[in-house]
Amino acid sequence: MTNKTFVTHEALLALIEEGLNAAVPEAAAPYAHGHPPALLAEAMRYSLLAGGKRLRPALLLRTVEMLGGDLQEALAMACALEMIHTYSLIHDDLPAMDNDDFRRGRPTNHKVYGEGIAILAGDGLLNSAFEGMLCNALRYPERLQRHVAAIEAIARRAGVTGMIGGQCLDLSSEGMGGDESLLSYIHLHKTARLFIAPVVAGGLLCGAESKQLSALEVYGRNVGLAFQIVDDLLDLEGDALAMGKATGADAKLGKLTWPALLGVETARQKVADLRREAFGALECFGDAAKELLGIGDRLTSRKA
Amino acid sequence: MTNKTFVTHEALLALIEEGLNAAVPEAAAPYAHGHPPALLAEAMRYSLLAGGKRLRPALLLRTVEMLGGDLQEALAMACALEMIHTYSLIHDDLPAMDNDDFRRGRPTNHKVYGEGIAILAGDGLLNSAFEGMLCNALRYPERLQRHVAAIEAIARRAGVTGMIGGQCLDLSSEGMGGDESLLSYIHLHKTARLFIAPVVAGGLLCGAESKQLSALEVYGRNVGLAFQIVDDLLDLEGDALAMGKATGADAKLGKLTWPALLGVETARQKVADLRREAFGALECFGDAAKELLGIGDRLTSRKA
Repeated sequence: MTNKTFVTHEALLALIEEGLNAAVPEAAAPYAHGHPPALLAEAMRYSLLAGGKRLRPALLLRTVEMLGGDLQEALAMACALEMIHTYSLIHDDLPAMDNDDFRRGRPTNHKVYGEGIAILAGDGLLNSAFEGMLCNALRYPERLQRHVAAIEAIARRAGVTGMIGGQCLDLSSEGMGGDESLLSYIHLHKTARLFIAPVVAGGLLCGAESKQLSALEVYGRNVGLAFQIVDDLLDLEGDALAMGKATGADAKLGKLTWPALLGVETARQKVADLRREAFGALECFGDAAKELLGIGDRLTSRKA
Repeated sequence: MTNKTFVTHEALLALIEEGLNAAVPEAAAPYAHGHPPALLAEAMRYSLLAGGKRLRPALLLRTVEMLGGDLQEALAMACALEMIHTYSLIHDDLPAMDNDDFRRGRPTNHKVYGEGIAILAGDGLLNSAFEGMLCNALRYPERLQRHVAAIEAIARRAGVTGMIGGQCLDLSSEGMGGDESLLSYIHLHKTARLFIAPVVAGGLLCGAESKQLSALEVYGRNVGLAFQIVDDLLDLEGDALAMGKATGADAKLGKLTWPALLGVETARQKVADLRREAFGALECFGDAAKELLGIGDRLTSRKA
């Protein structure tokens, strides 16, 4: 394990971008049966290929690499995670949800294509995520059970007991305040579940033992929760800079966050605790966990 | 085959309703981790358990019955088809799409729960459809390949090269007129693909031969297209009654339909041709096709 070689960050990103580009092909001739309409393919590609850090695909592929699996075999699953993440952003940006006009410096999907097409583009990305994983799984009959277990693990964490459930409570509790148990549900489900999904799915695909799967779940959950708190801390610092005040801006806006609920210092301590627990969980993988540790470190030590 | 016994229509419907009721459980305690929020479960159940003819689940289960498969093993897949159909109706009813206030005599999902929750309820039903099928598939390791092939067949026909693609062209061509090639794409993808999905998936689950799968696809496609034309003819008769005119009302509203494009008589002839071809395709199954023939007959001979 000590002499294990890793794919470079650039090579990994190139692999992911190639996979995403192929996952939603550009349109064929108009009204060609069995092809997506040109407008739909364009709207899906607009959001899917808009850059982004590709964190969730990278987490899955680094887990597979760590466990000695085949990156090409896992690529459809890595891309599916990004498609699920992207569809959730498109729907989340809609006027009936967060009503955002810009994302990553570009107009949001519905500002370009209209709300109706944005809803369908989101639906299309979610459905295509499953199509891609299922079609890929059928290419590996000797490991079909592992593929299905991994796809099921992703589906569950993206669904109503996972990400969609978190989105719902986030939306329905907006501006209403809340307590630790509500905030904990929202962050665990809306954010952390989609960090757990890639590492657990990667583990299942490679036939990891249950002790390893538990370790991966602890890593994913803690990195996800820490990532969310860092995000909220950065928001708060941005607001404070803008308003010339030290803290409390976010809380006044009615947004339920750990810094607003517990104060900035306690929130920072929580990040440190979550990081320590996440990295500790990876010890059982030894030096092979180097790249996963690196991603976890970058995700939870971001500065504004 | 001649003495084959069939489940009664009432027993089949009861089985489907039971499956749907279990597919989206009512909420547990507030903020219980790993459970859907109460509001989300309620919104999903509001639309999923609102009655309806359960055509797509019935088509799948009757196909499985015809081929000697196990109805209990197929139930999750049957329910998934209804969940996919229901999510498409919830999203289709939204103001940005068809903007409908009522469906089946009740307020549409977004009129009761708001647009944001309606979008999430639709997303949740689509995701839960896959969760249910995948989880069920893992219970049958000896027939896993058949399950995955069937789930993939459903996913493809529900996706951007299927139903979602048809929805997109239906939406983007609204009020713009159109020709036969556009109308043919919309009906084949938006409507017929979700009639093909249950019978082909049922066939794949039971290990049907490729000749049988082709016959099932012909049946599903033709019944689906005929169902759509009958629907348009009934709409036209309703409009004509309301306006005291014989024909042409729909065409004036800019809605692209076969009766509007080809005239009522030609459209009726098309229904008769599609029915004949659909029923002819089932001849290879002999008497065992009795129930599928019955569903096809009811679907394509509806009166207002």
